Amino acid sequence: MKTLREYSIEELNEYCEQIRQKIIQTVSKNGGHLSSNVGAVELIVAMHYVFDVKNDPFIFDVSHQAYTHKLLTDRWDRFDTLREIDGISGYTRPNESPCDYFVAGHSSTSISLAVGAAKAIALKGEQYKRVPIALIGDGSLSAGMVYEALNELGDRRYPVVILLNDNKMSISKPIGAISKFLSSAMAGGFYQRIKKTTEQILQYLPESATYMAKKFEESFKLITPGILFEELGIDYIGPIDGHDVESLIRALQSARSLKKPVIVHAQTLKGKGYEMAEGYYEKWHGVGPFDVASGEAIKQGLSKNATTMYSEALMQLAKTHDNVVGVTAAMPSGTGLTPLIQAYPNRFWDVAIAEQHAVTSMCAMAKEGFKPYITIYSTFLQRAYDQVIHDACIMNLDVVFAIDRAGIVGEDGETHQGAFDISYLSAVPNMTLMAPRDERSMHAAIHYSYLHKGPLAIRYPRGSFLESDAFESLPFEYGKAQLLQQGQSSILLLGYGAGVGKAVATAKLLAEKGIEAAIVDLRFVKPLDEPLLISLAQEYDQWYVFSDSVKIGGVGSLLMVLKEKHALHVKIKSFEYEDAFITHGATHLIEKKLGISIEQLSEAILKELY
Amino acid sequence: MKTLREYSIEELNEYCEQIRQKIIQTVSKNGGHLSSNVGAVELIVAMHYVFDVKNDPFIFDVSHQAYTHKLLTDRWDRFDTLREIDGISGYTRPNESPCDYFVAGHSSTSISLAVGAAKAIALKGEQYKRVPIALIGDGSLSAGMVYEALNELGDRRYPVVILLNDNKMSISKPIGAISKFLSSAMAGGFYQRIKKTTEQILQYLPESATYMAKKFEESFKLITPGILFEELGIDYIGPIDGHDVESLIRALQSARSLKKPVIVHAQTLKGKGYEMAEGYYEKWHGVGPFDVASGEAIKQGLSKNATTMYSEALMQLAKTHDNVVGVTAAMPSGTGLTPLIQAYPNRFWDVAIAEQHAVTSMCAMAKEGFKPYITIYSTFLQRAYDQVIHDACIMNLDVVFAIDRAGIVGEDGETHQGAFDISYLSAVPNMTLMAPRDERSMHAAIHYSYLHKGPLAIRYPRGSFLESDAFESLPFEYGKAQLLQQGQSSILLLGYGAGVGKAVATAKLLAEKGIEAAIVDLRFVKPLDEPLLISLAQEYDQWYVFSDSVKIGGVGSLLMVLKEKHALHVKIKSFEYEDAFITHGATHLIEKKLGISIEQLSEAILKELY
Repeated sequence: MKTLREYSIEELNEYCEQIRQKIIQTVSKNGGHLSSNVGAVELIVAMHYVFDVKNDPFIFDVSHQAYTHKLLTDRWDRFDTLREIDGISGYTRPNESPCDYFVAGHSSTSISLAVGAAKAIALKGEQYKRVPIALIGDGSLSAGMVYEALNELGDRRYPVVILLNDNKMSISKPIGAISKFLSSAMAGGFYQRIKKTTEQILQYLPESATYMAKKFEESFKLITPGILFEELGIDYIGPIDGHDVESLIRALQSARSLKKPVIVHAQTLKGKGYEMAEGYYEKWHGVGPFDVASGEAIKQGLSKNATTMYSEALMQLAKTHDNVVGVTAAMPSGTGLTPLIQAYPNRFWDVAIAEQHAVTSMCAMAKEGFKPYITIYSTFLQRAYDQVIHDACIMNLDVVFAIDRAGIVGEDGETHQGAFDISYLSAVPNMTLMAPRDERSMHAAIHYSYLHKGPLAIRYPRGSFLESDAFESLPFEYGKAQLLQQGQSSILLLGYGAGVGKAVATAKLLAEKGIEAAIVDLRFVKPLDEPLLISLAQEYDQWYVFSDSVKIGGVGSLLMVLKEKHALHVKIKSFEYEDAFITHGATHLIEKKLGISIEQLSEAILKELY
Repeated sequence: MKTLREYSIEELNEYCEQIRQKIIQTVSKNGGHLSSNVGAVELIVAMHYVFDVKNDPFIFDVSHQAYTHKLLTDRWDRFDTLREIDGISGYTRPNESPCDYFVAGHSSTSISLAVGAAKAIALKGEQYKRVPIALIGDGSLSAGMVYEALNELGDRRYPVVILLNDNKMSISKPIGAISKFLSSAMAGGFYQRIKKTTEQILQYLPESATYMAKKFEESFKLITPGILFEELGIDYIGPIDGHDVESLIRALQSARSLKKPVIVHAQTLKGKGYEMAEGYYEKWHGVGPFDVASGEAIKQGLSKNATTMYSEALMQLAKTHDNVVGVTAAMPSGTGLTPLIQAYPNRFWDVAIAEQHAVTSMCAMAKEGFKPYITIYSTFLQRAYDQVIHDACIMNLDVVFAIDRAGIVGEDGETHQGAFDISYLSAVPNMTLMAPRDERSMHAAIHYSYLHKGPLAIRYPRGSFLESDAFESLPFEYGKAQLLQQGQSSILLLGYGAGVGKAVATAKLLAEKGIEAAIVDLRFVKPLDEPLLISLAQEYDQWYVFSDSVKIGGVGSLLMVLKEKHALHVKIKSFEYEDAFITHGATHLIEKKLGISIEQLSEAILKELY
């Protein structure tokens, strides 16, 4: 079999087309990242042509665009298991293949990794023999971490090739000065201005002065799209057509040979090759299964998801309260903020992938009397942990963290699970933690949040809540839980957020076995409803905890601390996640694998009883 | 009394001199930030001259340079209580004065705050009537958060004035491409190159073409130090002399009137006015009490601090193991890494204020077979929490987090306390948490860390350990605690890290009352030594926990979870910190205020006994 390097350009182009079709077919069945992957086919083929994956560190930023890499490295035949449990991950994973250098799922780590790899290579005396190649999208340039890395890279000038995949958008529409800069660079604004002026001057020059003109050209060669990078000490090649394999190969070859840090700026079309996805549509970034011919989504469950509930509740609040503002870090659709940004463009912002800035800028708005809703995935709030402590909580500001994707998120897997927020937020003084259990309580929670003083975190899951609307939803009161039903046994099921629905479902299974458990919706875990829990401890001494969070520092541990404090005579067992990262796959299958499906939990309780 | 605006330039200069002397005198007595404060006197006087502190948001980045601001806003008479308990904070604090707009202690938040304030001002219809002014040092430009904020600011172009205090250094020597860029801008490298070429060209031009020359000058006016900012959509004024009040006032006046985002680039001399501090010396950044005439430090306790112990232990390790590498984020002296950077400049790096990049780049080195020691203050590791999870722990890499300043740090106060690391790190899978209790165990811990597989966090306090060298220090074994002494009572004191010394001291006080308590050094809190603790529970049922950390998610709570898991019949009481931010002041005074001095703890135990 021929290796990639033995292919002619024509053969490479055919291969790219095969890869593209394979991606479209697979994603249409399994869901996944579509437009970024079909847009990066030629880039990745060129990377593999010029660099050696067995030797050079291949670093994919976010790595949601690495499907082509997976197909090129022995995963073609297994690719139909994409994002399925025990199947191919949607991101790079060294556990899956030695060709995957590093895990990635969060944005903007690639240049730091390239710098670290370059330092290691230099120390091992392998310099120039191994060259890190990092593929990064323009959307990832908004996160500050990139500049921290460029700052050191430009200073120390390690040989590293950065392939900038510029599709003029991150996940949604492009935001920010850097994006504008790249666009204007392409349109050539600044460059054109300088060039025109120069030409006007050059017409005054005598013929003999052409050598001077040349010299002058050299001195302003820097004033090209690359100037931002050149100023930081990084060489620049581009912009080049990111779907032209031949140009890409040439550019990467010369970049690799430069023995310096180089940015190769390639322009691509997101969605390239699947006509209805071509262009600027957030819709085709991450998709569920769809019909290839029509582009129609194949619906998989019609119940309203928690994000939509939040979005609707916040919209109601924003209508009646002028001081409600909000922010998302590049996830307007994912977090349900799109309708708010459309309705109130001066009050709701997408600040691009910039979680730290999102939090701190909203803290200043709170200081000025506004009520900010920082709407963010649990896993991405980790990026702004210091800002939560330093800018929201020390200041004790009236800021709401609306934490989406809390718990297991399913197919995106270990980098995206929202498992830690209760642990890392509960430790922070002034912070209050609460969660709704269903649609009505989401509205009640958002209503409450507006009146709450101090930083408040509200968590809710990806997808829909389990049905628990059967119970009346009282208005939220600070630190007050809601007893949903009394029991006829020693058993109390304590649920938090989406855990309440699981507690209710478990109670039903127990009831079928003749055991009537009590159920409490904790509503707040910081602070816990001490009076209610103390009184419940008199009646029920077998406590079971349901929450989509890790055990360590989770709801169960907070209850165990309460037990110790008040010397309660109860046994507490938490059904939260064990101390391990959780892989990808359909959420119900993952839960089964972890032994925390409703059936397994009710069996676990029954086993302890008999 | 005259207001500042009624002063003549001469009077302003005199006032600056008075302020400077006041700062030098106070810091020489109380310790504090010297060089940054004497360097920023004129900048802050000019800020107060041009902007109205009662109206415009005054935002100080890190705010360790805000002493002049404090002296100008009604704190002159109380200034001798600087950094003392119940005295003036070393940082801005709205609780202290309404003139302090925001808390700051961590770097690089100011531009995000200014953007948030500007958004609020626009929404309130106060645009141009109130203009946020942010003072930021060049050292703070290395942190990524600044670019996240500039990215939005340059795009939306809110009227904000950024006063860049460029003293060619952050805390230690200048690092990174941005620093180089600013320097070369000052030396005029790029500018000079362009200018020279232009002059050569201009000499060929006919006399009549001067208007063209002018036009050309205009088009390359951008190619000045400001180009980096101009490209991001931020106007630029400078560089100007940051000790020339008159120029500063003029620059700020025109900046304020521009109705756009503007950077005023001022060059200052760090340490200005105190001759022996003038220049590039990290030594004069944060200082203890010193003699003004000689510059000699007034020694306040000669015991070796934990940082030095770590530094020496790591040096030994680095000598014998070539693959040991390490990083600090702009704290080479504070973290004890200076001697290692000097001895092994290719293996130890200061990457500037860039915690996220520091962690992730070292993760790549670990992937390449090196053993990185990421040496960082507990409070600053919060900045890299996501990188700890996403890049170190998911990858399960052999990376050591050497966490300095764990626990109460004293005079720096609430923004700097190292209170949360146990809570936020213990929840992360694959992470191991351990701590030495004294000098010998520090060496043993570092020796162990080299052999440990997977991410490992070692915490130790600011300053010295309480004496506990009396006990033999066994080699560390994964997850193994050390029983220091058996008791003759029901009491077991469980210490972790610096908490062990406190447990030992408390045991001595108890022994004086005739109570012989057992003492265990936990050594690891993740994982806990379950077999030992289970067996100790048979002998001792009154457990008291000593650790410099918050209760929520802290050592006590981890022990309570263990108790629940194994149904241990013990009572656990933790002496960790309550759920509140901890203010500034001498550590022993703060501990007394919190009720956790050794005397108070032994009394608390005795009270429970009788």
